[in-house]
Amino acid sequence: MTRGMFITLEGADGCGKSTQAALLAQALEAAGREVVCLREPGGTPISEKVRALLLDPAHAEMVPECELLLYEASRAQLTRQVIEPALARGAVVLCDRYYDSTYAYQAGGRKLPDDLVNAANALGSCGVAPDRTVVLDLDPALAYARATAGGADRMEAEGLAFQERVRAAYLRLAATEPARVRVVDASGKKDEVAMRVLGAIGDLP
Amino acid sequence: MTRGMFITLEGADGCGKSTQAALLAQALEAAGREVVCLREPGGTPISEKVRALLLDPAHAEMVPECELLLYEASRAQLTRQVIEPALARGAVVLCDRYYDSTYAYQAGGRKLPDDLVNAANALGSCGVAPDRTVVLDLDPALAYARATAGGADRMEAEGLAFQERVRAAYLRLAATEPARVRVVDASGKKDEVAMRVLGAIGDLP
Repeated sequence: MTRGMFITLEGADGCGKSTQAALLAQALEAAGREVVCLREPGGTPISEKVRALLLDPAHAEMVPECELLLYEASRAQLTRQVIEPALARGAVVLCDRYYDSTYAYQAGGRKLPDDLVNAANALGSCGVAPDRTVVLDLDPALAYARATAGGADRMEAEGLAFQERVRAAYLRLAATEPARVRVVDASGKKDEVAMRVLGAIGDLP
Repeated sequence: MTRGMFITLEGADGCGKSTQAALLAQALEAAGREVVCLREPGGTPISEKVRALLLDPAHAEMVPECELLLYEASRAQLTRQVIEPALARGAVVLCDRYYDSTYAYQAGGRKLPDDLVNAANALGSCGVAPDRTVVLDLDPALAYARATAGGADRMEAEGLAFQERVRAAYLRLAATEPARVRVVDASGKKDEVAMRVLGAIGDLP
C-alpha cells in the first residue's frame, strides 16, 4: 500500500493558503493519490462547533489559555477521527493550518510562553506530526489588507503588529526544523506560487 | 484584607455536591465571608458554551483527548476571569468540581495516562491550586442510581464500572496529597454530611 503522507500549509490569513491547498490537491490527485483536504480549526462536527466558539467576535473576553486549549481540543478530535484513519489507508492529508499555527499565533502573536504552547501542541496533536509543512510567506501588510477586506474576524482584528509577530514565529520554526518546515514566497501569480509549493514537497517519498 | 480561600468539592454525580456546596456557602457567609459559588464545567459565558458541547449526548464520537482539552479550556476561562479576581479581593471561592474531577474521570474513568492528564491540568488551571479539596465519598452504586434517576447525560451514560474507577482515582488523590484532599463520608442525612464537610475545612486560616 502507498504510504500515507501528512502535509500542512501555514501562513497568515490572506497569504493564499486555501487557493494553494486546492491547487496542490489537484496536482496530487492527478498523480493518482487520494487526497483528504482539511482546515483547522474544524474538519469534524465537534471541531466545527469549537471553531464557531473561537472565531465569534462576541467572545472578546476569551483568555489566551482558553483559546489555546480550544484549538487543541478541535485538533485532537480532527487528528483521531480523520487524520489518523486517512494516513492509515495511504491517503495524502492536506491540512490548512495545524499545530504550527498554534505556535505562530499563541506563542508568537499572543506571547504565551513557548513551553506552554509546545505542551499544549503535544496534547492536541496526539503525537501526530506533519511530514512536511509549507509556510506561505507574504509581506504582513499585504496579507492583512487582503484578509480584512471583507471585515475582520476576532483573530484578524488583532492588527498588523500581531501579524508581524506571527510571521517572525513561522520563520523561527523554519530555522529550527528545516527538514520539515519550508518557507515559500507567496507573492506573485497563483500558478507561480503553486509551482514553488510543489517544489517544496517534491522530495517526499 | 482577609486572605482569599479556594475550596473545591469533588465526587461522583449523585453524591450530594451541590447540596453540600449550598450549605457550606451559607455557613461561610454566616461567618462574614464573601462566597463565590461556581460549578465546573461552566461559570462564564464561554465556559457554559463549552459545557454544552461536553455534555451533549449527541457527541458520542468525541475522543478522550478532545474531551480532556475542552474541560481544560472551560477551566482556564473560569480561572482567569472569575477565580483569580475573587481570590485577589479576599473572597472564598467554592467550586463544584475542579481539576481533580479531570484526574478522576479522564485518568481514572477513561484510563488516559496520568502524565497526559496532569499536563493538561497544569495548563487548564493556569497554575491555580485549591487550598482544600473535599471529596464526598459514596457507594458508587448508590450515587449512580441517584444521578441517573432523571435520565443519563453523556458522562453518566458510561455506567457503573466507570464510576468505580472514578472513585478509586479520588481515593488515590487523597492518599497522594493528604494536606489538600480530604475524603468525607457522604452517606446519611444532609445536615450530618454538612458537619463533616465543615470539619474537613476547619483548620484552614
